[in-house]
Amino acid sequence: MEGGARSGAATVDLNSDVGESFGRWELGDDAAMLELVTSANVACGFHAGDASTLRRTCDVAAERGVSVGAQVGYRDLAGFGRRFIDMDPVELRDDVTYQIGALAGLARVAGTSVRYVKPHGALYNAAVHHEAQAQAVVDAVVAYDASLPLLGLPGSALLAAGERAGLRTVREAFADRAYTPEGTLVSRREPGAVLHDADAVADRVVRLVTERRLTAIDGTDVTVDADSICVHGDSPDAVAMAARIRERLAQEGVAVEAFA
Amino acid sequence: MEGGARSGAATVDLNSDVGESFGRWELGDDAAMLELVTSANVACGFHAGDASTLRRTCDVAAERGVSVGAQVGYRDLAGFGRRFIDMDPVELRDDVTYQIGALAGLARVAGTSVRYVKPHGALYNAAVHHEAQAQAVVDAVVAYDASLPLLGLPGSALLAAGERAGLRTVREAFADRAYTPEGTLVSRREPGAVLHDADAVADRVVRLVTERRLTAIDGTDVTVDADSICVHGDSPDAVAMAARIRERLAQEGVAVEAFA
Amino acid sequence: MEGGARSGAATVDLNSDVGESFGRWELGDDAAMLELVTSANVACGFHAGDASTLRRTCDVAAERGVSVGAQVGYRDLAGFGRRFIDMDPVELRDDVTYQIGALAGLARVAGTSVRYVKPHGALYNAAVHHEAQAQAVVDAVVAYDASLPLLGLPGSALLAAGERAGLRTVREAFADRAYTPEGTLVSRREPGAVLHDADAVADRVVRLVTERRLTAIDGTDVTVDADSICVHGDSPDAVAMAARIRERLAQEGVAVEAFA
Amino acid sequence: MEGGARSGAATVDLNSDVGESFGRWELGDDAAMLELVTSANVACGFHAGDASTLRRTCDVAAERGVSVGAQVGYRDLAGFGRRFIDMDPVELRDDVTYQIGALAGLARVAGTSVRYVKPHGALYNAAVHHEAQAQAVVDAVVAYDASLPLLGLPGSALLAAGERAGLRTVREAFADRAYTPEGTLVSRREPGAVLHDADAVADRVVRLVTERRLTAIDGTDVTVDADSICVHGDSPDAVAMAARIRERLAQEGVAVEAFA
Repeated sequence: MEGGARSGAATVDLNSDVGESFGRWELGDDAAMLELVTSANVACGFHAGDASTLRRTCDVAAERGVSVGAQVGYRDLAGFGRRFIDMDPVELRDDVTYQIGALAGLARVAGTSVRYVKPHGALYNAAVHHEAQAQAVVDAVVAYDASLPLLGLPGSALLAAGERAGLRTVREAFADRAYTPEGTLVSRREPGAVLHDADAVADRVVRLVTERRLTAIDGTDVTVDADSICVHGDSPDAVAMAARIRERLAQEGVAVEAFA
Repeated sequence: MEGGARSGAATVDLNSDVGESFGRWELGDDAAMLELVTSANVACGFHAGDASTLRRTCDVAAERGVSVGAQVGYRDLAGFGRRFIDMDPVELRDDVTYQIGALAGLARVAGTSVRYVKPHGALYNAAVHHEAQAQAVVDAVVAYDASLPLLGLPGSALLAAGERAGLRTVREAFADRAYTPEGTLVSRREPGAVLHDADAVADRVVRLVTERRLTAIDGTDVTVDADSICVHGDSPDAVAMAARIRERLAQEGVAVEAFA
Repeated sequence: MEGGARSGAATVDLNSDVGESFGRWELGDDAAMLELVTSANVACGFHAGDASTLRRTCDVAAERGVSVGAQVGYRDLAGFGRRFIDMDPVELRDDVTYQIGALAGLARVAGTSVRYVKPHGALYNAAVHHEAQAQAVVDAVVAYDASLPLLGLPGSALLAAGERAGLRTVREAFADRAYTPEGTLVSRREPGAVLHDADAVADRVVRLVTERRLTAIDGTDVTVDADSICVHGDSPDAVAMAARIRERLAQEGVAVEAFA
Repeated sequence: MEGGARSGAATVDLNSDVGESFGRWELGDDAAMLELVTSANVACGFHAGDASTLRRTCDVAAERGVSVGAQVGYRDLAGFGRRFIDMDPVELRDDVTYQIGALAGLARVAGTSVRYVKPHGALYNAAVHHEAQAQAVVDAVVAYDASLPLLGLPGSALLAAGERAGLRTVREAFADRAYTPEGTLVSRREPGAVLHDADAVADRVVRLVTERRLTAIDGTDVTVDADSICVHGDSPDAVAMAARIRERLAQEGVAVEAFA
């Protein structure tokens, strides 16, 4: 687990999903987001991202010094990787390796490299509790490059497996998501699960970073340890919200730096 | 162009396409072929080869000391990469980079690495004369790793572009294909284009390697310079033919060694 | 549910999966199987089957008077439709409609038509107990053509939902699978789950058809009602086993006829 | 060829590409376009359009009485069907049949039907001059339903083959494209090939419909016979331009009606 030095350090990473266009279809304003975040979760072609999109995204990330992460997902373009697939763990491990390698190739020609791994969508959700799939992702990273950190949900099977395997694990919190009093995410199916007020979200992030606490959905206070804050990239207001967060963090003297 | 030392050296490389199964569908007897060849043109997932097939193929290649090459192709599973696609050269370059990187990732976990690049199917054919697509493949290799050799047809736009770019180029001949008096391949649409007699093919390969000559389809003699001999992997008799070729080369004291 | 008249009628349907080749990859000996079965579960392109394979399969089925069924599956070529995908039911319903329509188009040009629907692989398994996915398949059939029968496992959520919706449901048993004393299939993970002796399997099918009984894996007798017997098509001995079954049924005077 | 009665009839069809979203990726404002056009070229899943998108598009088209056409394309999601693929004509024919059938299935559950066929993108362009591919499309339509009209470019190999085969052919002109003095389209690579001024385009369409003439790129007048006018659907100003065209046609008393 990442060091507890967060509270004093007043340093945080901002990560966002990018590279999710595919051929004719554009998604998100990657150029704008890459001005605001320090870690770019770049799709790897299985759930989104054609090769030219990925290469261009790596080009921009390299240019701006944004850390490139491999956002690995299920092979499911039609479902955007948001549907759980009950894959054989060995096949999943190999699919993850394939994706990391593919992105690494494009990052390399862009003059940068893959610096961390984060599962996407339904694989991210599965890796919270599905031990075999979590382990498959970890196995892929360990075999490919055991120095790559793993970005995920605190308390997830993924980060637990990563720690057992000796990987550096990086805990993330979600800027625009409501939390339960237990410190877990409120399901998107519940009312109030997603926050939309950029100012409120920015204040929340500042408190999360400086105090390691936020207000849960029931009004109580809860401790959340996070080394990185995920800001969404594909909603219409994503860029404005990310900009507001960066602005507030700057006002509070919090440095925004890539963890990797 | 590779040195003309072939005739004296009595050394040659044997290459074959492997890793072309996909999910439930099996193709070729890779385990047997990897006992016989020194260079394995491993598919990269765009025209064939799921990630687990590729990883297993790299495992076996690594175990047997067979050199792994990235056999890059068009994104066309339904057509097995055998249909020309009029791609934008930048997109083709990026697709090639993606594929090399993906295979490199799997080769890495198998304890080996990608040692050369060879286009597959319709891309191979296009790269004989289509300058822009040939250049796109070369651009991908140069940007990814300019020390990787390029395996292709002597006289092709691909090898010419590779040489101009400073890549090492490796010329191949086809064991079971008829040649014109000009030293080019007889089109598969012509009668007699593909040779089926394993003994005759093996004798032909020996002469090709030791004398740099073979008998063209019209009975005349023709000079063909080749650093590597391609043996097909997906026909029923492929393994028997490759075995016969190795046997004859051994009888003649020709060493079979990977070029990379 | 189909009538219990089976025991007296001495008539049964034999069904098998066909049309599962894809581009360069061949699977199964469809020509031979279509000489032996009366119902052809033709893949629809999502888990297997390119358009030309499907059309050719429909051509042969039409020629031989074999009934064409739409074997609908998850959109998952890499997994051959054998991996559960946690799809939204509306999307699944639409994917099923798309597949039925696509096959119907090819059946039409082949001079025949889609006569029934059977889910494939993981969708077949999911539809045994997953109410929402079972209902999605039923909804697709009802909306497309409520006169199409649904072929599935007796006792499954699929057939129950089909009956509630007023569809004709057709129960199938598996020729080469072991059964529990409760009349359900022994999981493939258990030893002895798959039977390999063609003679024993043929005798078993005869008894199943004439007596509606078979010997369960523990040696006890169990009643199994089936209107159709599924014979596998993609194993090396599939054709021989199907031929033996037909031969034994003929000896016993059991007519083999399509249910649709 | 469609009757020359256009000039007097003062009736025209407006067609546009719709149903081109795919999974998470949205493209075009189909709901708005389907208020304005009389014929909807609905994608069929090979170059764009997941099944739910297609079904929803058919639902809206049915509701508004817009005629549904099958916009068939190459199997190339990554290239959006805009890259020529050198397909075997038999495979192309079967792919076209598959697509028509798939859309027909979804149209059927939406309470409508496929009323015409139009090739998309690179297949549309290929079918202008590539006899074998044009014939393959025609063969598919003839075999599937010889009463379906074919929508295409006047003078194309496609419409010529369609006429020879006895299909009804429907000639289209492009609202926002410049024409040569010979009445052919100015290549998109030329400056001025695409018109952007909605008022000018609308006036042009009115003259095209009422006088069968328009001003070519060199300022001369040229005769263009068209039974349908194609308005683009995926540019930001597409809806505004289509609305302006309808408005002008209404002012001039030109009826806008589906040809099928």
